[in-house]
Amino acid sequence: MTRLMHLNAFLMGVGHHEAAWRLPETDVGGNLSLAHFTALARTAERGRMDSIFFADAPALMGDVRYRPVGQPDPTVLLGALAAATDRIGLIATASTTYEEPYNLARRFAAVDHLSGGRAGWNIVTTASPDAGRNFGLETMPNHSDRYARADEFVEVVAKLWDSWEDEAVAGDKESGEYADGARIHAIDHRGEHFGVLGPLDLPRSVQGRPVLVQAGSSETGRAFAARWAEAVFTAHQTLADGQVFYTDLKTRVGALGRDPDGVKILPGLVPVIGSTEAEAKAAERALEEAIVPEYGLKQLSAFFGIDMTGVELDAPLPPLPHEDEIEAQKSRFTLVTQLARRENLTVRQLLGRLGGGRGHRTFTGTPEQVADTLQEWFEQGAADGFNVMPPVLPGGLDLFVDHVIPELRRRGLFRDEYEGTTLREHLGLERPESRYAGRERVAA
Amino acid sequence: MTRLMHLNAFLMGVGHHEAAWRLPETDVGGNLSLAHFTALARTAERGRMDSIFFADAPALMGDVRYRPVGQPDPTVLLGALAAATDRIGLIATASTTYEEPYNLARRFAAVDHLSGGRAGWNIVTTASPDAGRNFGLETMPNHSDRYARADEFVEVVAKLWDSWEDEAVAGDKESGEYADGARIHAIDHRGEHFGVLGPLDLPRSVQGRPVLVQAGSSETGRAFAARWAEAVFTAHQTLADGQVFYTDLKTRVGALGRDPDGVKILPGLVPVIGSTEAEAKAAERALEEAIVPEYGLKQLSAFFGIDMTGVELDAPLPPLPHEDEIEAQKSRFTLVTQLARRENLTVRQLLGRLGGGRGHRTFTGTPEQVADTLQEWFEQGAADGFNVMPPVLPGGLDLFVDHVIPELRRRGLFRDEYEGTTLREHLGLERPESRYAGRERVAA
Repeated sequence: MTRLMHLNAFLMGVGHHEAAWRLPETDVGGNLSLAHFTALARTAERGRMDSIFFADAPALMGDVRYRPVGQPDPTVLLGALAAATDRIGLIATASTTYEEPYNLARRFAAVDHLSGGRAGWNIVTTASPDAGRNFGLETMPNHSDRYARADEFVEVVAKLWDSWEDEAVAGDKESGEYADGARIHAIDHRGEHFGVLGPLDLPRSVQGRPVLVQAGSSETGRAFAARWAEAVFTAHQTLADGQVFYTDLKTRVGALGRDPDGVKILPGLVPVIGSTEAEAKAAERALEEAIVPEYGLKQLSAFFGIDMTGVELDAPLPPLPHEDEIEAQKSRFTLVTQLARRENLTVRQLLGRLGGGRGHRTFTGTPEQVADTLQEWFEQGAADGFNVMPPVLPGGLDLFVDHVIPELRRRGLFRDEYEGTTLREHLGLERPESRYAGRERVAA
Repeated sequence: MTRLMHLNAFLMGVGHHEAAWRLPETDVGGNLSLAHFTALARTAERGRMDSIFFADAPALMGDVRYRPVGQPDPTVLLGALAAATDRIGLIATASTTYEEPYNLARRFAAVDHLSGGRAGWNIVTTASPDAGRNFGLETMPNHSDRYARADEFVEVVAKLWDSWEDEAVAGDKESGEYADGARIHAIDHRGEHFGVLGPLDLPRSVQGRPVLVQAGSSETGRAFAARWAEAVFTAHQTLADGQVFYTDLKTRVGALGRDPDGVKILPGLVPVIGSTEAEAKAAERALEEAIVPEYGLKQLSAFFGIDMTGVELDAPLPPLPHEDEIEAQKSRFTLVTQLARRENLTVRQLLGRLGGGRGHRTFTGTPEQVADTLQEWFEQGAADGFNVMPPVLPGGLDLFVDHVIPELRRRGLFRDEYEGTTLREHLGLERPESRYAGRERVAA
């Protein structure tokens, strides 16, 4: 069987580029509009993409003076988009640091039930100190403490999703037996961070468990991904870096006894597309010119967890600490500082490069050129597919679906039609069995 | 101007009657089906009802062996129904005991943004000890502690909803100013239960604040409702009880300096409807006969917070403690015990009465008779409208919308068409101004 790539549409407001909202064609209110997100989801579904995806953090992130930053809570938004679409996967980010496992297990199970098995959860630990201050924390839990909690959190959620066996619901009108109590299990979890009796208040969902997605690429993040993730969003600037990460993560997955093919690795790409190279370059330039440098520095500060305001714009990056000494997203920190050093970028040039993808790779070119680079990464051991991050929405997604996807199809690299109905089926992932299935039961 | 009644459709799985799922016409999987809920919401909207509403608790409540008890998380479900409807109000229950104010403020703001201003939050403190055990609590917080937390919780949420002034978003593409930072306020809340810096991560929503709904009728619950509620769901078996409650709550609201008309009181009614009295009685009997007595006793136990299993079915209720000595929903406890004593019901008869509405009033009759009782309560000072709880779904809602509502219209008691677009407009409630509006600002 031919290996096909997986494509996720990462939808962020009116586009991943920080200045997208200033373009003449952009609906400034799009980031809060159901019509906007419905159109995007339907476009991605028309392209037969595997899934759409929303980032999230429980705080006002970035500087709202320069950019529309807020977006509706993604679990609520996924509910709306479950109603507005039929087949495409629906992935939302949610934080293990600022949620409770019982609540989150319920919400993702709800999305999975309502969508007929299309839910995925992008697990994050939320690095921003701004989030902590919305939850009574004066000092933010550190990186490793957050991951320790995340590990137990996901374990509890997975147990809750398993707590009803698949055959638990009898629904026998004649006898009056709705469910077989012996097939519904208390999880009785008592751990360091959580005490959860269970069971979940819902039958097992269509996918058994919603798909687990992860995006942190630090050492701790990779260990976490190797244990839990079924899809991984990642950021690399070069093919070589992508290959190293891909091999490393697949090896870690195998070392834990999991099937390496059970984890799909999807590097991010911000495609700036034009029907000619010149047109693509012009689109890139229009976005660069719309950037407010003051805002770029604020973003860089948030990125690094270091105050960068006042830094000289037309000089190289000043000396910075090693990733071990910061509490921000370590892997992205290193990626961005290496990008600047490698290409001898001034701070101003770096801002231009970051404006699009916050550390993800930006690629400017024709649909064929975009397909070329996707094909290269896919065939050279750096990707099972891609996290497509249109710089401008809806326009950038339209271009990708209408011009890049047909080119990928011509090359035999992407599906013509959905073959399954669930996100697991789109991604070629197995449906997990409940851990409680087959446990000896009390006679009814 | 003629006073019109407000009608809310309280949607619960395949019906409020515990045995509804056993009827031949019922879709046993309806409680997990988006198609089921979409059809219900559209029926209620076709009837021009003010709103639909979902109850909720983060635990498996009741005995699932006898009844489909689970329902998707209602904030996710409201997201889906926001996409599937245009005008009807969307109210979900959420717990102040088991959520964080920042998370909940975001989710309801999301529903309000995505629905164009149709969100409402039914505030509950969640009495069930089963819930506590899903959140690491061995002993449940008591009634007054839960309400103390609820009071501060709602205060925080209201501040967060106010944290962006209405005019905060400039969206000025030319200058690059997206928002006026001086009109976005940290709330800097530091209280006994919560420390929340804010601001919310979303602009102020269409309604300013989603509508606040409340349903507890204990002494503490009434005080809470008088302070916060804009609509109150309540349960009374007799007109006299309804009148006493209505007068008491409106008086409390006025005593706090609020407009008594700014709080809409909606008693619950479970209407069992037939085109003739005989047909209605037959429908009632079919439901009663489908009840499993063993389950009824379990329900009664949960209701009272007292183990009732093994109690003699064909005898009166045994002696029970006063509501002050129990930790369950106090007001419902008293209501049910009084109902049994007043009408000399055996336990078995009481189960039949409770099977439909768990303490809410069940009324069996023709559409004209249902309209009569609604009109009487509405005109005799017991109600501003009603919480309509169909015993069977979708059938019971179809009957209400197709036969009772037209009769209410003929009597001039209910709207022909929506006049507004938001839930506040349907309910005749004012849009609150942000508490931060007009505060002196730092010059931009």
